[in-house]
Amino acid sequence: MKADIGLIGLAVMGENLVMNMESKGFTAAVFNRTTAKVKSFVEGRARDKNIIGAYSIEELVGSLKKPRRIMMMVKAGAAVDELIETLLPHLEPGDILIDGGNSHFTDTIRRTAYVESKGFMYIGTGVSGGEEGALKGPSMMPGGSPGAWPYVKDMFQAVCAKVEDGSPCCEWVGENGAGHFVKMVHNGIEYGDMQLICEAYQFMRDSLQMRADEMHEVFKAWNETELDSYLIEITGDIFAYKDVDGAPMVDKILDAAGQKGTGKWAGIAAFEEGVPLTLIGEAVFARCLSAMKEERVAAAKAFPRAEGGIDYNRAECIEQLRKALYASKIISYAQGYTLMRAAAKTYGWNLNYGGIALMWRGGCIIRSVFLSKIKEAYDRNPGLENLLLDPYFGEVVKGLVPAWRRIVAEAVTHGIPMPAFSAALAYFDGYTTERLPANLLQAQRDYFGAHTYERLDAPRGQFFHTNWTGRGGSTAASTYTI
Amino acid sequence: MKADIGLIGLAVMGENLVMNMESKGFTAAVFNRTTAKVKSFVEGRARDKNIIGAYSIEELVGSLKKPRRIMMMVKAGAAVDELIETLLPHLEPGDILIDGGNSHFTDTIRRTAYVESKGFMYIGTGVSGGEEGALKGPSMMPGGSPGAWPYVKDMFQAVCAKVEDGSPCCEWVGENGAGHFVKMVHNGIEYGDMQLICEAYQFMRDSLQMRADEMHEVFKAWNETELDSYLIEITGDIFAYKDVDGAPMVDKILDAAGQKGTGKWAGIAAFEEGVPLTLIGEAVFARCLSAMKEERVAAAKAFPRAEGGIDYNRAECIEQLRKALYASKIISYAQGYTLMRAAAKTYGWNLNYGGIALMWRGGCIIRSVFLSKIKEAYDRNPGLENLLLDPYFGEVVKGLVPAWRRIVAEAVTHGIPMPAFSAALAYFDGYTTERLPANLLQAQRDYFGAHTYERLDAPRGQFFHTNWTGRGGSTAASTYTI
Repeated sequence: MKADIGLIGLAVMGENLVMNMESKGFTAAVFNRTTAKVKSFVEGRARDKNIIGAYSIEELVGSLKKPRRIMMMVKAGAAVDELIETLLPHLEPGDILIDGGNSHFTDTIRRTAYVESKGFMYIGTGVSGGEEGALKGPSMMPGGSPGAWPYVKDMFQAVCAKVEDGSPCCEWVGENGAGHFVKMVHNGIEYGDMQLICEAYQFMRDSLQMRADEMHEVFKAWNETELDSYLIEITGDIFAYKDVDGAPMVDKILDAAGQKGTGKWAGIAAFEEGVPLTLIGEAVFARCLSAMKEERVAAAKAFPRAEGGIDYNRAECIEQLRKALYASKIISYAQGYTLMRAAAKTYGWNLNYGGIALMWRGGCIIRSVFLSKIKEAYDRNPGLENLLLDPYFGEVVKGLVPAWRRIVAEAVTHGIPMPAFSAALAYFDGYTTERLPANLLQAQRDYFGAHTYERLDAPRGQFFHTNWTGRGGSTAASTYTI
Repeated sequence: MKADIGLIGLAVMGENLVMNMESKGFTAAVFNRTTAKVKSFVEGRARDKNIIGAYSIEELVGSLKKPRRIMMMVKAGAAVDELIETLLPHLEPGDILIDGGNSHFTDTIRRTAYVESKGFMYIGTGVSGGEEGALKGPSMMPGGSPGAWPYVKDMFQAVCAKVEDGSPCCEWVGENGAGHFVKMVHNGIEYGDMQLICEAYQFMRDSLQMRADEMHEVFKAWNETELDSYLIEITGDIFAYKDVDGAPMVDKILDAAGQKGTGKWAGIAAFEEGVPLTLIGEAVFARCLSAMKEERVAAAKAFPRAEGGIDYNRAECIEQLRKALYASKIISYAQGYTLMRAAAKTYGWNLNYGGIALMWRGGCIIRSVFLSKIKEAYDRNPGLENLLLDPYFGEVVKGLVPAWRRIVAEAVTHGIPMPAFSAALAYFDGYTTERLPANLLQAQRDYFGAHTYERLDAPRGQFFHTNWTGRGGSTAASTYTI
C-alpha cells in the first residue's frame, strides 16, 4: 500500500504530527536523516500503526501515492533549502513539497517560486500549538501554490484543531509566503497577549500586593468573561501550582524571559511595511529588558521606589485592570490585522481575515473566544481598515476607555512598568486624533532638509517649501514655494 | 597638479562637500555619470576654484595623488556596488574608496571585506547635517579599513564641523560598518528628538491651548536650558514664522509626516540585537500613524473626545513638560547607546562612546549642549552600561521623575497621544525594577512549550521544567525536573 503523505524530520513536532495523521486514517511514510530515528520510531511509538519507515529519500518517494505530498518538518533555514535540493530530482510534475516548520515568510516566497519553476508545487504552512497541538490538533495556516491546496485540504482539515461547531482551524491563507506571514503575526500576537497578562500580574502583585492564590482566583474569574482564552486559563493554573515546600512555584522562577527569536520578525515586518505595531514591539523589547537582570538589580538600587501598595478599592481596581487588559488586547489585534492588510497589498495576497481569526480560534496558544468576535467583524465588513472602526468593537472600547486610562495613569504615577498597556493607549489616542503634531515635524524637516510639506488648504500631493531662515537658496519643492 | 581627492556624484551633497573641501585648501577632482553635470559645475559654482573636472573614470583616477582617495556620493544601494566594480580595475594597492552616502551598515561591512580582498582600502562614512552641513561643516562618522584613516584624517577633520573649543566633529569610529552603524543610530535619535518635541507641542496646543506665538516664546526659553539644541532652536523659529496672511505657517501644514525610510533601520537593528529601543521605535511608528490621515479623521469622529483645555497652572505645567521632555530625551540616548554597545559586541567594534557624542556635538541635526554631558559620562566610565547608571545623569533623572510622571499621567488621563514620552517612562520603570513579571512569562512558556525556566534559588544556567498540568511526559529540561 502506498502512503498518503511522506514526512521528513522526526523531532517531536514531526513525530506527533504523523501520529495525528495516522489517527485520522491517513497512512504516512517517514524519513529522518539520522535513520536510527526512523527505526526507533516505527518500532516504538509507531508500532502497529499505518506508518511506513523509509531509510532513504528514494525509498520515501517510492512509497508515496501520486501526486506525492512530502512534508518537511526540519529546522527552519538552510536545512529546508538543502532538503528541497535533495528532493527535487526525485519528483514528478504535480508533486507537492510542504514546509511545516517555522520559516520566515520571505524564504517561503522565494522557495515557492523556485519549486514552481521546476514544475512542482509548494506549500509553506504555519503549524501552531506546540507538541500537544501537533498531536491532538494544531492550528494550521497554509499558503503557497494555490493548485496544491485541493490535494492537502482534506488531510490538513482532518488533523487540525476544531472549534466548538466543528469548523476546522485550517483554511487556505494565500499565495506563496502568506501562510508563514500569518503564522508570524500569530507569534507576535502571542508575545503581546503574554506581555499584557504579565503587566496585569505586576500591577496586582506590586500595587495591590496580591498573593498567588488570590491571583489564581482572579484569573479563574476572568476566564469566565470576554477574556476567556487559553493563556488566561493556564495563567490561573500557574498561580495555583505549589513548589515542594508549598510556596507558589511562580514566585520561585527567575524573571528573565527567554525567546526563540521569531517574535521580532513581526516587529521587523511592521517597520518594513510602515505599520505601527507598537504593542507587539514593546512585548518583544520587554523580554529583552527582563533578560538584563543584573543591570536591573543595579538600577533598582540606584533608583529606589517607595515601598508598599497603594490604597485602592481592590475589587474595583481589579475590574478596571481587566477592562484595561481587554482594551489593550483589542489594540494588539487591531495592529496585527493592520499589518496583515499592509502585507497583503505589498505581496498581492487576497487574505480572508475572518478565516484567519477562525484558524486561531482553536489549537494554538492565542486561542480565545474573543477571536469569534473578530471573525464576526470581518464577516460584517471584509474590507475593515481597523478593528476600532467596527461598530461592535467600537462600542466595546468606548466602554473600556475610562478604566483603561485610570489603570495606565496609576501605573505611570506609581512606577509600575506597563509598556504594552501604555503603548496600546498611546496608539488608541493617536489613531483617534484628527490633528497630530506631525505638521510641526514636517516644518522641521522642511527647515533643515528642504523636504517640503503639504498644506491643509491645498490638495494632497501638492508640495510646498518655505525658506524658514531667509537664508539658503534652491529647494526641492515639486510645485512652488512660498 | 594632482588632486588630493576625487569625488564622484555631483548631486547637491557631493557638490557642497567639494566646495567645502576646496575652501579648506584641498584640490578635488570631480566626476559625474552624466558628464554635462561636471561641465556645468566646473564652469559655474566651481569656477576659479581648485576643482578639476573629469569626464571619465580614467581621467578622474589619473588626476589623483597616490594613494588615491576616491569619495563616492551616489545613491545608497546597487549604485554603490556598481561604482565599486567600475573603479576597482583602475586602482593600485593602497588606494582608498570612500562611501559618503547613507548606506546600510551591513552593506558597508560586506563592501569593506570585498574591497580589502582586492588589495585596497575602504571607508564608509556617515555624513550628517544635510546640504548646509556638507557645505559648511558636517558631522562625519567614518569606519572601514583602519589603515585608511591616517590618509583621510586631516582632510575629514578640516572639512567637518567644530565644537566651541575647536574639536572636530569627526573621529575614527571603528572597523568596517561601524561608521554607518553610528550614523544609523544618529538618524534614529533624530527621529526620537523630533517626536519628543512634537508631543510636547501637542500637549501645549491641546491641553494648554497655547498659540504658536506663545509656543515660540517657550521654545526660545527652553533653548537657554539643558535642552539647548538645534532642533529646539529651529522649532522656536518655526512657531514665529507667519504665512502671507499673517497666520502661523505651522498651523497651515498637513499633519502627515514623511520619511525617507532610514529611521526604521535602527529599530530593525534593535530587534536583531535584542536591545529595547522603544522610544525610537515609537517615533518611527508615530510618523507612520500620522500619515494615515483619512483613517484618523474617521476614527476621531467615531471616538469623540471632550473639547477644551484643562485647568492647569500654565507656567508650572510648562516647566513640568520641559522636565518630562528632558527625561525622555535622556532615555532615548540611553537606549541608542545601549544599541551601539550591543552591536559593537556583535561585530567586534571597539567604539569610543565619548568620541561619538563629540562627533554629534556639531554639524548635525541632533547637535546639542546635552551631548557634552554624555561625552563627560563616557569619559568618566568608558564601559558605562547605561546612561542612567552614570552618577550625573542618575541625579538629573531623579530630579525630573515627578514632573515626568505627572505629564504622562495627564496625557493618559486626557487622551493626548504621547507615545514616545510614555515609552520612555515605561522603559525607565522597567529598567529600574528588580523583579519584573517575566517569571510568569517563563512559567507560561514552560507550561505550553516545555521551554524550561531558571530559578531565583538556583545558579544561572540551570534550567527546570514543571509538569504544570500533571499530563504530558518528556520534557526539554537540560538538568532535572520537579
